[in-house]
This record gives sequence, C-alpha cells and structure tokens, in this order.
Amino acid sequence: MKLGEIGEDRLLNQLALGKAVFAGAGDDCAIVEIPGSKKYLVLKTDCVVESVHFVHRTSASDVGWKAMMRPLSDFAAASAVPQFALITLIVPQKTKVAWVRGLYRGLRRAASRFDVSIVGGETSNTSGPIAISVSVIGFVEKSRAASRRGGKPGDHLFVTGRLGNALKRKHLKFVARIAESRWLTRNFPIHAMMDLSDGLGADLPRLARASKVGFDIQLKNLPVARGATIDKAISEGEDYELLFAVATRDRNRLEREWRRNFPKLLLTRIGSLNRKSQVANRKLPLGYVHFQQPR
Amino acid sequence: MKLGEIGEDRLLNQLALGKAVFAGAGDDCAIVEIPGSKKYLVLKTDCVVESVHFVHRTSASDVGWKAMMRPLSDFAAASAVPQFALITLIVPQKTKVAWVRGLYRGLRRAASRFDVSIVGGETSNTSGPIAISVSVIGFVEKSRAASRRGGKPGDHLFVTGRLGNALKRKHLKFVARIAESRWLTRNFPIHAMMDLSDGLGADLPRLARASKVGFDIQLKNLPVARGATIDKAISEGEDYELLFAVATRDRNRLEREWRRNFPKLLLTRIGSLNRKSQVANRKLPLGYVHFQQPR
Repeated sequence: MKLGEIGEDRLLNQLALGKAVFAGAGDDCAIVEIPGSKKYLVLKTDCVVESVHFVHRTSASDVGWKAMMRPLSDFAAASAVPQFALITLIVPQKTKVAWVRGLYRGLRRAASRFDVSIVGGETSNTSGPIAISVSVIGFVEKSRAASRRGGKPGDHLFVTGRLGNALKRKHLKFVARIAESRWLTRNFPIHAMMDLSDGLGADLPRLARASKVGFDIQLKNLPVARGATIDKAISEGEDYELLFAVATRDRNRLEREWRRNFPKLLLTRIGSLNRKSQVANRKLPLGYVHFQQPR
Repeated sequence: MKLGEIGEDRLLNQLALGKAVFAGAGDDCAIVEIPGSKKYLVLKTDCVVESVHFVHRTSASDVGWKAMMRPLSDFAAASAVPQFALITLIVPQKTKVAWVRGLYRGLRRAASRFDVSIVGGETSNTSGPIAISVSVIGFVEKSRAASRRGGKPGDHLFVTGRLGNALKRKHLKFVARIAESRWLTRNFPIHAMMDLSDGLGADLPRLARASKVGFDIQLKNLPVARGATIDKAISEGEDYELLFAVATRDRNRLEREWRRNFPKLLLTRIGSLNRKSQVANRKLPLGYVHFQQPR
C-alpha cells in the first residue's frame, strides 16, 4: 500500500508513544506535564514544502511568515503562549542566498509578532523542493489549556473571522489568533478549541470525534469571505481562524464582550454540538485532507 | 550568491534572534532559562535527507534510528536529559506504507532507549527526496549544562570511543553518549563539550573558537577506528563521539574512574587547549562542512 492511499490522521496515530500527556499526536499541539511546574509544556512542529504549501514564485519572506505562523496558529488553538522556535531548512545548494535571507526575514518577523525567540536551527542540502520545518515550544497554565476534547452536547460552536478564499492572499499573511484565544480562556470556560487549517469540513468532524459528540451546522449562518461560496468556505482550508465550543449559558456574555474587545473581528455562532448522530455528522462536506482527495 | 558558496555556520548565525540564552544557534543545543525553574530548557532540531544523510536502499528502521539519535547526540553534548520529541516527515505519496512503518519503528526504538516520548508529528507530501526532521526537548540542571564555550588554556582534550570509518555501519547504529555525558558532569567540572558529527577536523576548531582558545593535537594519539587512517579519522565525520575539555588537575581521577565505570569504552587524551595560536589551529586538516568541500 502506498502512503497516498491512507490518511494523515491514521498515519500520525501510529507514531506517538503513550506517556501521560494532556493532549498528544492528533491534537493541535502536544501538551505535557513537567515535574514541579504549574504550567504545561506545549510543543508543536509543522512544515511547509514548495509546490505543496507555496509555489516557486511566492515571496521568500511570505513563505517564512507562513512557516512560522502555522505552528503559532496551533498555539492559539491550545491557548498557549509560544516562547521558543527551532527551524529546519532543507534547501538545494543552488538556492540564492538572497532568497534564504528573505525567508529568515519572514520567519523573524512572524516570531517577533509574539515575542518568540528563534533559538536554533539546522540546514541540509537536498536535490528536491525547498522544505521548512518549524518547531515551537511554549507554556500554558493548566487551568487554561484548550484542546479538541471537552466539547459537550448543547455547546454553541463559534468561529472567528470569515471562511474561504484564503488561498488568494490570506494564507501567506494571516496572524495567529493567539491574542483572541488567550482572551477567551481568561474570561470563559472554553470546552473545546482548534484552529481551522484544512477547512471547516475536515476540521469540525475532528473536534467532534475528539469530544465524542455530534454537531449541527446552520450553513446559512457561515461567515463566508468575500469572493467565496459556502462550499469553498467549508472545503478550501487555510483559514487559520479559531473554532471553539462554549456552554449555552456563556453565549450572550461572550458575544457582548467579544464585540467590545475585538470590534474589528467577526465572531459567529455557526451551530452547536449534540449527542453523536451519524445524520448530523454527514451534513458537512469534507474539506482538504492531506494525502486524500475530498470525497 | 548561491547557498553552496557560503558555509552553514555563517548562515545559521543570521537566523537566531537575541534573547537571554545560555547557549543558542551555533552550539549543539539551544539552552534557555525558564522562569521559576531550577533547570534550563534544552531544545534541538535536526534532520536527515535521502541522498544526503542516507541512501535509498538504507533500511527504513535504520533511517529512523539515525534521525532520532542525531539530536539525542546533541543532548549528550549539552549533558541534558531528553524528554519529548516531535517528528516532521516529508515523503512522496508513492512511498510504501511499510517503509513508513519501518521508519517509525526505528524512531520509536531510538526514543525508547532514552525514555523519550514522541508526542507529536506532522507529515507532508513532496515531489522530492524523503526528509525527516526531529525536534527534541528536555532539561538540564543549571550547574551541569555543558556547551562548546568554557574551555580554558591548559585544559586536557578527551574523546570517547574511536574515530573514522563510521560511514560503513556506525552512522546508522550509534547510541548517543548520554549516559557517559551525564556521568561526566555528575563527577567532574566539564569546561567544554560537543559531539563529533562533522569530524574532529571541523568540530574541534568550532569548540576552540567558541571557547576563544587554540588547540594542540597529538595526531599519533588519536584513537583511530579499525579500517580507518588518521586522515579519515579527522575528516570523515559521523562519529557521534564526545569531545570535551577538563582541567589538568582532573586528568588522573577522570582516567581512573572512567575505566571503572565504562570498561568497554575507550577514553583518550588527544591533546590540550592553549592560548590562541594560528600555528596550532592549523595543525588539523578540515573535516566535512555542510555546503562546503573540505579545503
């Protein structure tokens, strides 16, 4: 069997070793206990590859920005504070030094945005496309760690911003929703949270599965980005918005205080979680899944 | 200018952001302060790329072992205890699932050897060669953190094991010298330490530069591996042995206690550090430097 015939989710689950972790492979970040600390250690690695995540003509600095912001977006999903980053750069010898400098500029700029220190790196030659892997390490208070698990039947589902049409420009320019996520867990019990990278259609079922619940989405309520259709808003991916679940009783206060704190960023209730129901789960078309075509 | 025309060391130094770190980019690991902890946080990322670090016919499990042991060897250099690992796997869709399973077996086996938990991973498609990036995170007591800096004129230089001929088999089978390194810093003040991955000829000058000292090597004393010449022992690389500097007064006790604790592993005094001297620094031919041919 070839790798292209099985899904990324299945493959990754075979990798992780069992050890007491709050959240591990399959969730947005790994969140682990460290002895003698009141915080969890939070770890995430992610990569961008030429011709897969960016095209050859993309500005090097945009590539660096995206390579750093992607794992930072996973930190937003965990409501964690990123602190350190490690870079692995796999590039052909023929690559122009100016390109690499531009890449570093983008990486550094994105890291500085959240006061993250790039503390180490490694480079290797390759005969293939450019690949940049970024690992980010940080911390989260034990009471504020968010994960995909913990959603409860009846919870309201919210998304930040607008979905769809992100491949045009936003996927290279987005800012991880760390400020919003930290604000959320400071002020509300967030039952479950994740960032939308593969599209709501692929990502929401993951949150529901991890929380062992079903979901019900009002498609007409989806905050569709200008130039996108509902279908694209569900399936295109690369939105890097937050999807989260809160208890019914918190809905009104959340909507009110959100508007006051983030007047420029839309927050939309798109539906709710329910007891597991195959019917409800099938209401949403699948988004982009690495190694799999949308069915 | 193309990347192949400048050295890896120079490139990496342009990447790291300044922030209070004990050791950063350019050293074996990044070693950073974390508020409220008596230990340093230790971070390392490393990668192996098909056709650069392994050939197509290499057993997948050997590739996994090497990909994990390389950053663990950097932990040995820092005398740090590794705890968590993140894997980024960049593979063409056509790769056989059995190959990936073999790779995971090697990664897991190497991680288990030092009780390291693989807590997360990421996979991406590529049109090029297979690449595996491994980030390892752990801790070290502040009093025991080793780095390349801190070597003093007069210090004795020691290496573990034998050098050279590692490309035949050892580079896929080595065990990071973490047990030895932890024993060293528990029992002796280790002034400077690193692991030998690019060959003594490239690595020793890095330790000397970081310590702002010169060195003097007795070539006839080098512990040359069976089947290797002195030249190859210096320049081939992939030895993954420890190179370290200790004060003169510790030499005898070190040699005596080493023999008792590690009767099967050679420890050799290969020379000493001295005040910076261009002549002494030029006694050693250069080893393998990524992106540069040996001069």
